[in-house]
Amino acid sequence: MNVQDPDYEARVRGSFAKQRFMATIGATITSVQPGEVEIELPYRNDLVQQHGFLHAGVVSSVVDSACGYAALTLMRPGSAVLSVEFKVNLLAPAQGKRFRARGRVARSGRTITVCSGELTVVESSVVVALMQATMIAVDSREDRRD
Amino acid sequence: MNVQDPDYEARVRGSFAKQRFMATIGATITSVQPGEVEIELPYRNDLVQQHGFLHAGVVSSVVDSACGYAALTLMRPGSAVLSVEFKVNLLAPAQGKRFRARGRVARSGRTITVCSGELTVVESSVVVALMQATMIAVDSREDRRD
Amino acid sequence: MNVQDPDYEARVRGSFAKQRFMATIGATITSVQPGEVEIELPYRNDLVQQHGFLHAGVVSSVVDSACGYAALTLMRPGSAVLSVEFKVNLLAPAQGKRFRARGRVARSGRTITVCSGELTVVESSVVVALMQATMIAVDSREDRRD
Amino acid sequence: MNVQDPDYEARVRGSFAKQRFMATIGATITSVQPGEVEIELPYRNDLVQQHGFLHAGVVSSVVDSACGYAALTLMRPGSAVLSVEFKVNLLAPAQGKRFRARGRVARSGRTITVCSGELTVVESSVVVALMQATMIAVDSREDRRD
Repeated sequence: MNVQDPDYEARVRGSFAKQRFMATIGATITSVQPGEVEIELPYRNDLVQQHGFLHAGVVSSVVDSACGYAALTLMRPGSAVLSVEFKVNLLAPAQGKRFRARGRVARSGRTITVCSGELTVVESSVVVALMQATMIAVDSREDRRD
Repeated sequence: MNVQDPDYEARVRGSFAKQRFMATIGATITSVQPGEVEIELPYRNDLVQQHGFLHAGVVSSVVDSACGYAALTLMRPGSAVLSVEFKVNLLAPAQGKRFRARGRVARSGRTITVCSGELTVVESSVVVALMQATMIAVDSREDRRD
Repeated sequence: MNVQDPDYEARVRGSFAKQRFMATIGATITSVQPGEVEIELPYRNDLVQQHGFLHAGVVSSVVDSACGYAALTLMRPGSAVLSVEFKVNLLAPAQGKRFRARGRVARSGRTITVCSGELTVVESSVVVALMQATMIAVDSREDRRD
Repeated sequence: MNVQDPDYEARVRGSFAKQRFMATIGATITSVQPGEVEIELPYRNDLVQQHGFLHAGVVSSVVDSACGYAALTLMRPGSAVLSVEFKVNLLAPAQGKRFRARGRVARSGRTITVCSGELTVVESSVVVALMQATMIAVDSREDRRD
């Protein structure tokens, strides 16, 4: 995993801080390594679907952010990251006190980065979801900067 | 599209009302037809990613719920719906004042239902995202009822 | 759907003719329109999985080619198309005498094109599979030309 | 990984032998373990797309079969396996002399099994593709038996 931006961690943490939706749901970024990022999310009963488990969209949100920022750690300075697409398999109900999303770069290219992600329950290590995602590096502009 | 539960609309609306995450983000269910459900979501600046667009996870949340409930309209009474997996392609930045998620059943089986979903910007009709999702009917229990 | 290469049809048909795997399975390209391509495949009993239906990989092959060439119809002259990823839902067993794959561009961008595809049984119109695919335009080189 | 059918290996190998498409492309099953199956495929120039690499559909075929049979190793006697859906990311051109597809069960349920798959180039260990797939166990019938 080749880092092209020595300030990758500050860049990722700064961009995450601008993702207001992460603050809205109470997610925090807990680890930023080259090609791998972790985000944690405590359970809250206003984030649930009809059976009281975390909504699949909430699950996707934190794993997508973890994947996107894992991709960003390896991108050139001045580029921004966007999600092209992702696919999520839901393996177990998202029930627990605390969840950890992990995104890892599977292949880093000049334009396209492919990531694998997962959500686990911290206290039980149960895997709730698996993600396979495609991210793209775009030139940063005034209105689109990471 | 064969309806097996004459009370499908009440069932869907009742289950949606229990998805507390939908209330958290301000989403409302606006149409319930056999095999097709619509959900609307006004823009809010606490739902955004780092560039000020709706977070891809928020996009996924409302389209996933629309797909799940589209599937539920055709399920037997007493069954509950769960998302097995979904895939989302993000076609355009989610910028606008109001968004409409539509989920449609592509194939309804005894166990598995396949749905197509999309998110559009209401005022411009721009398609923001396309989803292809797999839903499963499970037997309803005390703790898992739709 | 804006065509940038007036010779798009010849380009697509020429590239298809180089896909030797299409000849191996007996697939032919039957329609090339801006943003939409069709490929047909007669049933053959050496293309089957264990229950005698077309193998899901064969299904994917023709729908992927249809999607890729639908994308290519709208690309600049001199670019080549590659599949970034695709997702296939299998809705019904692929049984029949003749199958038609259709790929349609859902969004055409400078780099990324998103396509929707399907496979139907010609004689019954049964939908066998749905695909959602991401294609990328790359600069053509000696060894990678469409 | 709990094996429910002590004859899982014979069942998988017997079913693979009936997938005539695997013979058509020259694929062989090289390893059958509980929850993990490997298939190998030598390069052949009649399996290629327009640039001379293995067609993405061929790549998908062998990884899908590996995933399906990985799922089948853990299913009850008398059940048959069908692919519900799969998603493939293509990471590198499929160029090489010999390819290995590996399918692994990520979660094995009563009805649904989720698998992760990949295709690598044997001589270089380059990862060509990643798959995330959903398989379903169906009751075996005369015409649908594994």
